[in-house]
Amino acid sequence: METRNATEVRFHVRYSETDQMGIVHHASYVVYLEEARSDFIRQRGNSYAELERQGLYLAVSEVHIKYLKAAHYDELIRIRCEVERVRSRSLDFSYSVYCEATGELLATARTSHICIDKDGVVASIPVAWRQLIG
Amino acid sequence: METRNATEVRFHVRYSETDQMGIVHHASYVVYLEEARSDFIRQRGNSYAELERQGLYLAVSEVHIKYLKAAHYDELIRIRCEVERVRSRSLDFSYSVYCEATGELLATARTSHICIDKDGVVASIPVAWRQLIG
Amino acid sequence: METRNATEVRFHVRYSETDQMGIVHHASYVVYLEEARSDFIRQRGNSYAELERQGLYLAVSEVHIKYLKAAHYDELIRIRCEVERVRSRSLDFSYSVYCEATGELLATARTSHICIDKDGVVASIPVAWRQLIG
Amino acid sequence: METRNATEVRFHVRYSETDQMGIVHHASYVVYLEEARSDFIRQRGNSYAELERQGLYLAVSEVHIKYLKAAHYDELIRIRCEVERVRSRSLDFSYSVYCEATGELLATARTSHICIDKDGVVASIPVAWRQLIG
Repeated sequence: METRNATEVRFHVRYSETDQMGIVHHASYVVYLEEARSDFIRQRGNSYAELERQGLYLAVSEVHIKYLKAAHYDELIRIRCEVERVRSRSLDFSYSVYCEATGELLATARTSHICIDKDGVVASIPVAWRQLIG
Repeated sequence: METRNATEVRFHVRYSETDQMGIVHHASYVVYLEEARSDFIRQRGNSYAELERQGLYLAVSEVHIKYLKAAHYDELIRIRCEVERVRSRSLDFSYSVYCEATGELLATARTSHICIDKDGVVASIPVAWRQLIG
Repeated sequence: METRNATEVRFHVRYSETDQMGIVHHASYVVYLEEARSDFIRQRGNSYAELERQGLYLAVSEVHIKYLKAAHYDELIRIRCEVERVRSRSLDFSYSVYCEATGELLATARTSHICIDKDGVVASIPVAWRQLIG
Repeated sequence: METRNATEVRFHVRYSETDQMGIVHHASYVVYLEEARSDFIRQRGNSYAELERQGLYLAVSEVHIKYLKAAHYDELIRIRCEVERVRSRSLDFSYSVYCEATGELLATARTSHICIDKDGVVASIPVAWRQLIG
């Protein structure tokens, strides 16, 4: 279900994302969440690359993932990505990671981001972006 | 153009695949080629995971990539993946990696694979798989 | 400072671990923490590979990282890795990630692990391993 | 054996570098080779980061790897890295990747690099760097 501030992205697990346990390595989920954020912005008709061209970055300040069930090679992953909170200089996303075929919840996660400029100084998220995201 | 033994796959460059040069890191292409192979088999109605369930693996014996132009975050990549040669125990794929928006050729590559069993012993590629791939 | 249940590991940031912000990508820290755990066990004269040979895995059930300052290519990273709690079937590690040259704290983290067997069933951590780790 | 233009680096295989075949994923070797190059320059008392601060990059133009034997988690890898050829605007490295414990040759490789500036224009490798590397 897509709502005002939630989107869903789907992609296949890549072979290189597995480890010798035969499952998706837990670090791969951090990359998956980022891809869900990229898609979130893309679905709103913009690109995070555009924000960076303005000299602003949404640096990751916190990542928290709970792993519930393993994902496997070639499975179709679905991630629901939601903006939880937008403030003037920071924002939080929350995520639910599913196996598309079974509908099982594989992981839940939250990431926090802070807006910084090229020098690493905390900056305000441009209003246009706050409206785009929030 | 899709032909008897060539397929095309498209995906966006992920942020984590870039490096501090501001372009896609050269190791990411090895993962891209693998994803093109996975898609090649998927498009033929099978999954490489299925081959592994039979206790067989197509181990990579050689990778050769020529980098022509840089790819960037969020760009849509298109890879043409072609079977170059199938022998009883090994096979070669060749690849052309494009930027979808500009049509520019970013890289060309070739990978060689050898069929092995769970113990690492060289094995024959099952006939059904040779027909599927070749 | 090495104590009964804390160790320190040092390694250089790899180029591929950076992203187009010019800093270490946040997903790389998950790999760094894992390397700190591997080293923790290695320093106790064992290898996590040995546990896996017994058919047991310490699956990651939770990762929580707070990013304080950016790390950069070629910097020497130092991670202090500490066992926080060992129970019969699970354990927690906590981490402090430093830039060796400046002594600055780059990140703090905690990971939780659950012992499972080859079939994914929760299992007891062998007593010898509990003593090794705890 | 360290010679005028060859160095050796050693590091442990990380868990995340393995795949579900139970061996080191073939893309990890591209990262290993890069780490060998970084170490090559570091051993000569400089850092590749320094070259980049001058606005110059050694972009990878070609990677060719032959995989002979698999590497495994926690094994100590040793890479002999050698400058094969230095020209005014490009250079080649060659590599031999070994398992330190057994002395077995796991892979051989060659990478080619071209010197470019911030705008991607081909540039001369500074003489001081040619002397450092060659």
